[in-house]
Amino acid sequence: MPIITLLTDYGTADSYVGEVKGVLLSRVPGVTLVDITHEIAPGDIAAGAYVLARTWGRFPAGTVHLVVIDPGVGGERAAVAITAGGHGFVGPDNGLFGTLNGREGLRAIRLPVPEAASHTFHGRDLFAPAAGALAAGVPLAELGAGHPGALVPLPVAEPRYEGKMVIGEVIYVDRYGNLVTNLTTAFVPPYASLEIESLVVGPLRQTFSDVPVGGLVAYVGSGGFVEVAVRDGSAMRRTGLGVGGKVKARLG
Amino acid sequence: MPIITLLTDYGTADSYVGEVKGVLLSRVPGVTLVDITHEIAPGDIAAGAYVLARTWGRFPAGTVHLVVIDPGVGGERAAVAITAGGHGFVGPDNGLFGTLNGREGLRAIRLPVPEAASHTFHGRDLFAPAAGALAAGVPLAELGAGHPGALVPLPVAEPRYEGKMVIGEVIYVDRYGNLVTNLTTAFVPPYASLEIESLVVGPLRQTFSDVPVGGLVAYVGSGGFVEVAVRDGSAMRRTGLGVGGKVKARLG
Amino acid sequence: MPIITLLTDYGTADSYVGEVKGVLLSRVPGVTLVDITHEIAPGDIAAGAYVLARTWGRFPAGTVHLVVIDPGVGGERAAVAITAGGHGFVGPDNGLFGTLNGREGLRAIRLPVPEAASHTFHGRDLFAPAAGALAAGVPLAELGAGHPGALVPLPVAEPRYEGKMVIGEVIYVDRYGNLVTNLTTAFVPPYASLEIESLVVGPLRQTFSDVPVGGLVAYVGSGGFVEVAVRDGSAMRRTGLGVGGKVKARLG
Repeated sequence: MPIITLLTDYGTADSYVGEVKGVLLSRVPGVTLVDITHEIAPGDIAAGAYVLARTWGRFPAGTVHLVVIDPGVGGERAAVAITAGGHGFVGPDNGLFGTLNGREGLRAIRLPVPEAASHTFHGRDLFAPAAGALAAGVPLAELGAGHPGALVPLPVAEPRYEGKMVIGEVIYVDRYGNLVTNLTTAFVPPYASLEIESLVVGPLRQTFSDVPVGGLVAYVGSGGFVEVAVRDGSAMRRTGLGVGGKVKARLG
Repeated sequence: MPIITLLTDYGTADSYVGEVKGVLLSRVPGVTLVDITHEIAPGDIAAGAYVLARTWGRFPAGTVHLVVIDPGVGGERAAVAITAGGHGFVGPDNGLFGTLNGREGLRAIRLPVPEAASHTFHGRDLFAPAAGALAAGVPLAELGAGHPGALVPLPVAEPRYEGKMVIGEVIYVDRYGNLVTNLTTAFVPPYASLEIESLVVGPLRQTFSDVPVGGLVAYVGSGGFVEVAVRDGSAMRRTGLGVGGKVKARLG
Repeated sequence: MPIITLLTDYGTADSYVGEVKGVLLSRVPGVTLVDITHEIAPGDIAAGAYVLARTWGRFPAGTVHLVVIDPGVGGERAAVAITAGGHGFVGPDNGLFGTLNGREGLRAIRLPVPEAASHTFHGRDLFAPAAGALAAGVPLAELGAGHPGALVPLPVAEPRYEGKMVIGEVIYVDRYGNLVTNLTTAFVPPYASLEIESLVVGPLRQTFSDVPVGGLVAYVGSGGFVEVAVRDGSAMRRTGLGVGGKVKARLG
């Protein structure tokens, strides 16, 4: 009972997702298709990599993840199929899969581009057939030739120390306006107080209802990173911060 | 062949819906997942309850409805699993399920929060596992302890009489800008004429094409309530009305 | 293992898609439901027809396509069920299915409106039951009486010649702001240069990366038509063109 998840920047208003699903269902009768999201901002590889890293491990072993945020379609970037952690992955090697580097049993191959493939829609003509084959049990080695080496990594911002401060930054903003940072509890001990510019957010709490409605609150989010939210509101609107914005933890 | 429907305010741009689906598919292999919507405005419990009330009875008996609009996540509100009318329901007891009160055979239990659950993502860590268990056939009583009593009701606006007028109000606005009111044919006889402020909408018609393009039209909507629309247009934009806006029926 | 695809202008925020899916799953246990899109602009029959034409042939034979963009619901337009090319189609005969005219083996019947059907939600009460029946193997002839003749065609803009120019127009704009035109390689030879008003786009290229970032590029899109895009940008925003906008090919 194979499962294929789909994560793209195609949006859901056009025909693109439907065309991809038609190809998958034609090649793998009975496959279960799961939309992760198609609303990654066009070409936002970092957001796609973040969403992939949070989701894939929640699915059963054997699931194949088709991930297409591909601003370089038709250009020089490699098309890859990967197995790692008991899951399959297919898409462009442009940083989307960088967090898989170092995974036990990681194997990757470079997919050849079919001659008849459209030059602008590899999701339908190259990646979907490969994901379908992988989900149908075709061995990775039969899908293409060896990939030269490590998957393309994404530049990751690391928190840094400045005196008694740790300086983190926002790596993702979700629909609620919650600011996901690159800080973890390894950087933010219980006695630390979080700050955004001149706003004091305070120490880490457990959940939204630990502050009054409208209050700023910092907590360890469900993805393992420190987040800043406004209870029943939007921290993005309150603070004006977006991806790359600085969130500081004062250590004493 | 179990079915689980999903109704949330998570939006479809982030990883949240995908994480929930991964948990469900891991626990109930082969389950059919159906998105009702994830675009309830953040925390809009009334809209969630309205959409749930319209949809659940359309599904086959045995379907489990996972409903998470949960602004109080991690706080005092109860987490519940419910069986009623041959269907299952899982989510926070904050009014979402109030319309189930009085259903024959209604039973509800309070779900314990797993120790490892994130404090901000009960959809993934508490409600999805419970919905999965229910869909897999685990008896309700094994999922938690007895719920104290009635499900939390939603305050419902009732139409009221003022002389020869019935005053109703808008309870939902859909994508077309159609205004769904709390009026029914019990309040609006065939000879009554509907009004919005100084606009005369006229008597109930059968469908949009009973008025010219651009005309205001009142009719009994597919959910059983009186609605006001503009043919090939938006009654919300035409009238400026939103939820809570007044719609009057003149009785003579 | 039947498949039903759904293509509507219902949006995904309301209960409508969920209600339709409940009806389908109640009538065809185990059916695979695939959302093509629900974000066709309300009443935009031309966009619905374009998306349908691109997608249906990608699905396995036997798939049923439920297509409801139906501004005339409850009025005079016919409700139809169709078989063509080994696929089934159900929806209003208002132009959505015009591209099926001339298909080998095309057969269509007119669906009777069930007495209990809502006058404003034929998707749920008329079309979904018919699509379910077709997917469950009920013969077309049992669903209704003979349809009078050809399916309603859509007015299609044809490119025209003006001296050494071919004048095409934009028929669809996708999420990336790519402009899909009614031009094909039959009209645009390799030596032709494309123009939009005073902007020179140049000859047809293979893909986005054949021009610098931010550059305008014309190419044969994945649907077979000439498209104009901006690499890593939006041609709609760059040119200000929308549906009906003129794109010219200079032939010498």
